Amino acid sequence: MTIDRVAIIGGTGDEGFGLALRWAKAGIEVTIGSRDAARGEEAARKLSVMVGASAHGATNQEAAAAHDVFVVTVPFAGQATIYKSIADHVREDAIVIDGTVPVTSAVGGRATTVLGVWQGSAAQQASSLLPKSVTTMGAFHTLAAKAVHELETPLEGDVLVCGSKKGKPVVRELVEAIESLRFVDAGALDQARIVEPLTALLIGINRRYKTDRAGVHITGLPG
Amino acid sequence: MTIDRVAIIGGTGDEGFGLALRWAKAGIEVTIGSRDAARGEEAARKLSVMVGASAHGATNQEAAAAHDVFVVTVPFAGQATIYKSIADHVREDAIVIDGTVPVTSAVGGRATTVLGVWQGSAAQQASSLLPKSVTTMGAFHTLAAKAVHELETPLEGDVLVCGSKKGKPVVRELVEAIESLRFVDAGALDQARIVEPLTALLIGINRRYKTDRAGVHITGLPG
Repeated sequence: MTIDRVAIIGGTGDEGFGLALRWAKAGIEVTIGSRDAARGEEAARKLSVMVGASAHGATNQEAAAAHDVFVVTVPFAGQATIYKSIADHVREDAIVIDGTVPVTSAVGGRATTVLGVWQGSAAQQASSLLPKSVTTMGAFHTLAAKAVHELETPLEGDVLVCGSKKGKPVVRELVEAIESLRFVDAGALDQARIVEPLTALLIGINRRYKTDRAGVHITGLPG
Repeated sequence: MTIDRVAIIGGTGDEGFGLALRWAKAGIEVTIGSRDAARGEEAARKLSVMVGASAHGATNQEAAAAHDVFVVTVPFAGQATIYKSIADHVREDAIVIDGTVPVTSAVGGRATTVLGVWQGSAAQQASSLLPKSVTTMGAFHTLAAKAVHELETPLEGDVLVCGSKKGKPVVRELVEAIESLRFVDAGALDQARIVEPLTALLIGINRRYKTDRAGVHITGLPG
């Protein structure tokens, strides 16, 4: 399979817009979903100017309904609401890639600590809010948004991908469409319990090291 | 401060013995603590032969009582028992570095998942079982034991160190005594909630990638 189109729900946010830029640059047709269609379209226009490729804006529901593969990058405070709002619009066989991190700032606390999520992780919560036929994956948690935006700079670090075997080749393709980024198979969806909190750890490391681009690389892998 | 001696409680195990080898090689006087003094002494003799440096064996209580700085690398199933057994012997100002990981295999489950620990992490449980005057740190969770044993091979990956500012320079010195290993300040002790589970993630990654040396490196740090 070759992915030629992808939607990013929450694509007006920092991380989502950065990924949209990277994928558009790689020649993938990008749709930016937003609660407000006008904001999605505005982000799509901005992206077109920056990358020189056309992009589309849409409501989250429209974006979900129109894609076999979409990525969700939203703050945890709004995650459940957004999944509930798209659940009836998602395609039966869709592959949904969640990048949400349950940082405590969602409820007014710190960004360096995480909330306990009833299902175990934000990705599992996402899965619980979508039809059973949908494949939910967890990925793109640990990329520094600032670095993702710098299109001329190859990205450091790996993408730790959690979820079923069915979804992994699709996520791998999206990862590898971005120059120098490596796909790492992090296991089943429940391993998102371990992967998601890494973002909180990296936020703390960024503060202590006065940077904004800490990421994670797995050493010792063959190849 | 310069650390010229360190004890390793659980130093007869894979990870602990590997660290003992590395530190002995770096010229640090090593004591291997065990529940059974004879086993500690046997490991110390083996180490002496392998590294050509003298080492000592002791009971865990003796090792704790005789050191300002010691490392605890024990299976989670025995962690609380061991801390309770040394609590009355630990020096008032001791710096104790815990490397325990609460993998579910401690209670007959998987090594790729972790148990919830009441205090939040194994390191925090350790802290709760020691006198308040003691400084408890968390470190050395994500080093592949196999690689640690290969003394001629520089280690890849970082040591993510959690705990108070008081303990960090000490742990940094122990980390940097091992060739090519990097100290990363991972924040306060409660960040061990995020760091410890990484071992379970790495065990799963090792299985999927048919290796035994996956580790973690933080990208994007200055210097």
